[in-house]
Amino acid sequence: MKSANAGAAARVRAALAAIEAAGRPEIWITVRAADALLADAAAVDQAVAAGGDLPLAGLLLAVKNNVDVAGIDTTAACPGYAYTPEHDAEAVARLRAAGAVVLGATNLDQFATGLVGTRSPHGVVRDARRPEFISGGSSSGSAVAVALGLADIAIGTDTAGSGRVPAGLQGIVGIKATLNVVSTAGVVPACRSWDAVTIFARDLGTAELAMGAMAGGARPWPADARLAAPARPRVAYPSSLPELPPAWAAEFGRQIARLQAAGVEAEPIGFDVFLEAARLLYDGGLVAERYAAVGAFVDAASSEGAGNPAGNPAGLDPTVAGIVRAAGQVPAHQYVADTGRLEGLKRQAMERLDGFDALVVPTAPFHPGLEEVAADPVGVNSRMGTYTNFCNLFDLSAVAVPAGEVDGAQFGLTVVGRTFDDAVVADIARRIETPAVPPVLFAAGAAPARQRPAGEPWPVRAGASCVPLVVVGAHRKGQPLAHQLETLGAFWDGPVRTAPRYRMVSLDTQPPKPGVYRSDDGAELVAERWLLSEAALGKFLAALPEPMLLGSVRLNDGSSAVGFACDAVAAATGTDITEYRDWLAAPAAVGGRGSRTSLADALLVGLTRGLQPGIRRP
Amino acid sequence: MKSANAGAAARVRAALAAIEAAGRPEIWITVRAADALLADAAAVDQAVAAGGDLPLAGLLLAVKNNVDVAGIDTTAACPGYAYTPEHDAEAVARLRAAGAVVLGATNLDQFATGLVGTRSPHGVVRDARRPEFISGGSSSGSAVAVALGLADIAIGTDTAGSGRVPAGLQGIVGIKATLNVVSTAGVVPACRSWDAVTIFARDLGTAELAMGAMAGGARPWPADARLAAPARPRVAYPSSLPELPPAWAAEFGRQIARLQAAGVEAEPIGFDVFLEAARLLYDGGLVAERYAAVGAFVDAASSEGAGNPAGNPAGLDPTVAGIVRAAGQVPAHQYVADTGRLEGLKRQAMERLDGFDALVVPTAPFHPGLEEVAADPVGVNSRMGTYTNFCNLFDLSAVAVPAGEVDGAQFGLTVVGRTFDDAVVADIARRIETPAVPPVLFAAGAAPARQRPAGEPWPVRAGASCVPLVVVGAHRKGQPLAHQLETLGAFWDGPVRTAPRYRMVSLDTQPPKPGVYRSDDGAELVAERWLLSEAALGKFLAALPEPMLLGSVRLNDGSSAVGFACDAVAAATGTDITEYRDWLAAPAAVGGRGSRTSLADALLVGLTRGLQPGIRRP
Repeated sequence: MKSANAGAAARVRAALAAIEAAGRPEIWITVRAADALLADAAAVDQAVAAGGDLPLAGLLLAVKNNVDVAGIDTTAACPGYAYTPEHDAEAVARLRAAGAVVLGATNLDQFATGLVGTRSPHGVVRDARRPEFISGGSSSGSAVAVALGLADIAIGTDTAGSGRVPAGLQGIVGIKATLNVVSTAGVVPACRSWDAVTIFARDLGTAELAMGAMAGGARPWPADARLAAPARPRVAYPSSLPELPPAWAAEFGRQIARLQAAGVEAEPIGFDVFLEAARLLYDGGLVAERYAAVGAFVDAASSEGAGNPAGNPAGLDPTVAGIVRAAGQVPAHQYVADTGRLEGLKRQAMERLDGFDALVVPTAPFHPGLEEVAADPVGVNSRMGTYTNFCNLFDLSAVAVPAGEVDGAQFGLTVVGRTFDDAVVADIARRIETPAVPPVLFAAGAAPARQRPAGEPWPVRAGASCVPLVVVGAHRKGQPLAHQLETLGAFWDGPVRTAPRYRMVSLDTQPPKPGVYRSDDGAELVAERWLLSEAALGKFLAALPEPMLLGSVRLNDGSSAVGFACDAVAAATGTDITEYRDWLAAPAAVGGRGSRTSLADALLVGLTRGLQPGIRRP
Repeated sequence: MKSANAGAAARVRAALAAIEAAGRPEIWITVRAADALLADAAAVDQAVAAGGDLPLAGLLLAVKNNVDVAGIDTTAACPGYAYTPEHDAEAVARLRAAGAVVLGATNLDQFATGLVGTRSPHGVVRDARRPEFISGGSSSGSAVAVALGLADIAIGTDTAGSGRVPAGLQGIVGIKATLNVVSTAGVVPACRSWDAVTIFARDLGTAELAMGAMAGGARPWPADARLAAPARPRVAYPSSLPELPPAWAAEFGRQIARLQAAGVEAEPIGFDVFLEAARLLYDGGLVAERYAAVGAFVDAASSEGAGNPAGNPAGLDPTVAGIVRAAGQVPAHQYVADTGRLEGLKRQAMERLDGFDALVVPTAPFHPGLEEVAADPVGVNSRMGTYTNFCNLFDLSAVAVPAGEVDGAQFGLTVVGRTFDDAVVADIARRIETPAVPPVLFAAGAAPARQRPAGEPWPVRAGASCVPLVVVGAHRKGQPLAHQLETLGAFWDGPVRTAPRYRMVSLDTQPPKPGVYRSDDGAELVAERWLLSEAALGKFLAALPEPMLLGSVRLNDGSSAVGFACDAVAAATGTDITEYRDWLAAPAAVGGRGSRTSLADALLVGLTRGLQPGIRRP
């Protein structure tokens, strides 16, 4: 094992040895040559040595082989479909630009059609821990590479759950952001309308860091995107748990109880409309998107296979090919009618989630063995998607996190949130995530210990609007008015100090508040910083009562932020408490209007009267 | 002619007489009975007498007969399709709640399939002025009822231009808002994904007033919706004008020159991608939506007709029925592929519009006669949609306004804007609109003179976020920093005065600015009010430099708004100019830091030092 601070080159060498040692050739469709890998790693090490800001420096990246990597054949696990892209997919390019090193391209359920990991001519991808079980799919190779520790992060794709089901079964984290927050440019479509590019990692912090680098640009964040969950989130969970064996249902119940104990309100809701949407995907006209994506190829390859004594030269998976061909028979009016139904179901589902910050579901309902899937490839596959299918159809955000074990299998929960509630979902998932799962086989030089950088929920890194707001009193975390900011989706960014140029008075308000004003005779004040969307800041300002004001405040690190001030009357009439520096250290009894307050008032009036322009103009 | 202040009952009686006198029975599918109409009118008159706030009180409303009016058969101009709705469509209910009186249901191109107004068993709807010409469609009866003066406002629907083409040909205003800003609940779908409910009126102010009442609730406005066009908007126009006869093209050129003379920058852009989207609608798979909407009915009615000696008992229009039946043959994968192509075209079109506030196009390319359409019903119809088809496919907003005459026909322009840029588009359309067009036949009691209420672009009335911001100096209209607010899409709401509790100093800034602070010894200051979205306000605050602050300001009418203040140092060191009340009246030379400023500074420092808590606490 290499040290946590091993350079990228050392980590690449360790990974190549681990890939060799793992004895899991089915994970990879292409492993890049050692010299190319080491050249990339050396470039990263040099950039870091030169002081480059590479948040993912040296992280080893596996890429599902339906996502373009320049120079590696994109096959979507169908050899006959292969083409050699000149450019990286945008998601890959962004991760590389942030310092990740692409190890190679991973196996998948052909054309990303499946949730099992068994539908590939490159072999069945087996569970990281128990090789007689499935990996889950369709991002099978990517998930197992991360679970085994061969890669630190991996790109998956997700239409019906392919970025979540294998995360759940492999005991790792999978983030499936709101649709098109990550660009799908350079990705072989599965169902163009509902495809998402996802990330896997063994801990949420690393996954979020990668998401922050990978996302952005493709679909703009709204100006009122929430950047955090409230202090006490409310989550919904399904009132009944179809497809879960009793032990899994019991484990789900324990996890909900754990969440509740951790300060999350959790309440059951009817899950029928979510299940109905899932059925539309498998049994309705929506599947026509699969034919639109690769149908012409599958038709041509099928007829070629039919007349060919060698059988199936393109390497079509028979189950996948059957699904795609059937999808070509759907009439357009059925597709249109089903998207209409879907819209209605989404409306109902959103009503069910009214008042909740998110929905918590099991990620996968059970963990089937290889034989179970072989015996009923379509049936088992559909059941696997019970808790994931609806998500992209409703344009929701989701994070799958490990949550212990049951019956020897990994158990996982997925937090599902509204469109663009990606930061909220990550926030809630953080409360579920059990300690980082150790790699099953091998840590490829052990991933550098990484934390999400302070002050940056990943949607902010990916371009969500964000304004820092500095508070000194009643809006600090845990203080009486903090809920105003939490309700607006503000993210608490930690303590800061102002530059030494502000004075603080105690105001006679309910609740008591400090008032701050700039003064040449000021002090460094203890403060906290929140991040808000632009719309949240505007809404907050619109509701701000006299005598509070907002404007630019300077901090002791030289940066500026929006911060509180009080108006002239309040500054002159409040009780000065600057000497305490920290509102929470000032005596709670300070405040009220005493005789000196009136004196100050009179002084200010006198002062301003003395500044009449008639007197002052030269 | 009744007076402008005639009550609703008087106006209803006049309208009934006018409908009779007009000799245009083809306009209406149902005219409501006089007693029901008069009862509704009496209720409105009573509500007004009781002081009710009914912005549309007594306006006479015609409703296209594919939109539900409780108790009137919805036929979509196909007698066999008729059903009797129990409830008004949401759009109708909202207009009624605002005081409009529903006169009846109007004729249309069957199932809203057409842009001509000739495809109905209830008769060909003829042009208001020249009956040998078409009305335009599909909202034919609604447009002609308004043009003739039989109704003040009318509901249309618009998928490919049905709320704009007849407005253009009839010389009236048609607003087609961003999709789903007006609810389509209670409307017979044409193409569910691209249907919009629209409004017609003879002037833009009335149309906007009605839109403000009719819209809202169905699709939330973004938190950063723009509420006005910049002071000097930039518009694009097509560099070539397919389908326009030379005289029409010349008139379009004159109108563009007129706009430029009025302070609008106008530049040509390539129009090919817009035209390509239009072709997708007519020649591609998107038409499948028509079959999804009414295909099952048309199939059943067609086969019934085939076996029926009476011919066509359902009253199917043969052209419409042919289009719908053909739409049933499209495979879903073609539809999916075409929506994909459409997405790509939209991206390209939006790139063309980069840097422009809107696109200005002719509304209709020419005005055909009845015989011309009869000779080539499908061909002429397609050509009519050249400048309207792309709009809903790209989810754009549009306002059609009259713009003079050419060759004896009405000439019209349409301003097309981005999704949710409805207020921007209306703002630019206001610069085009020629004086309100007089009703051709009869003003039904003359519509009460109405103006858009101050401070309320219609999207604000319909729920777009909006915060008032009061400014006293450099951000007033025409002043050096007003562009900051204009760039943020702020709407100028006119002059206001503060409550008599603020003092004003001149600040030594570039450009010179006043600083305002609350004082018991203050004055009423001259100010102006802007309206901004919440996100625009947040963005503005985030960029605000020291010593400027924002907070609650009281106005002399007792209301509050967000307004400017300056910080304590600026208040104490600026030159007092309160006596001028109005920044623009204060001598420009005022400002700078003189010796008295330093004195004031010292005084404030002394003041705050005197308020040390150690001294003050009891």
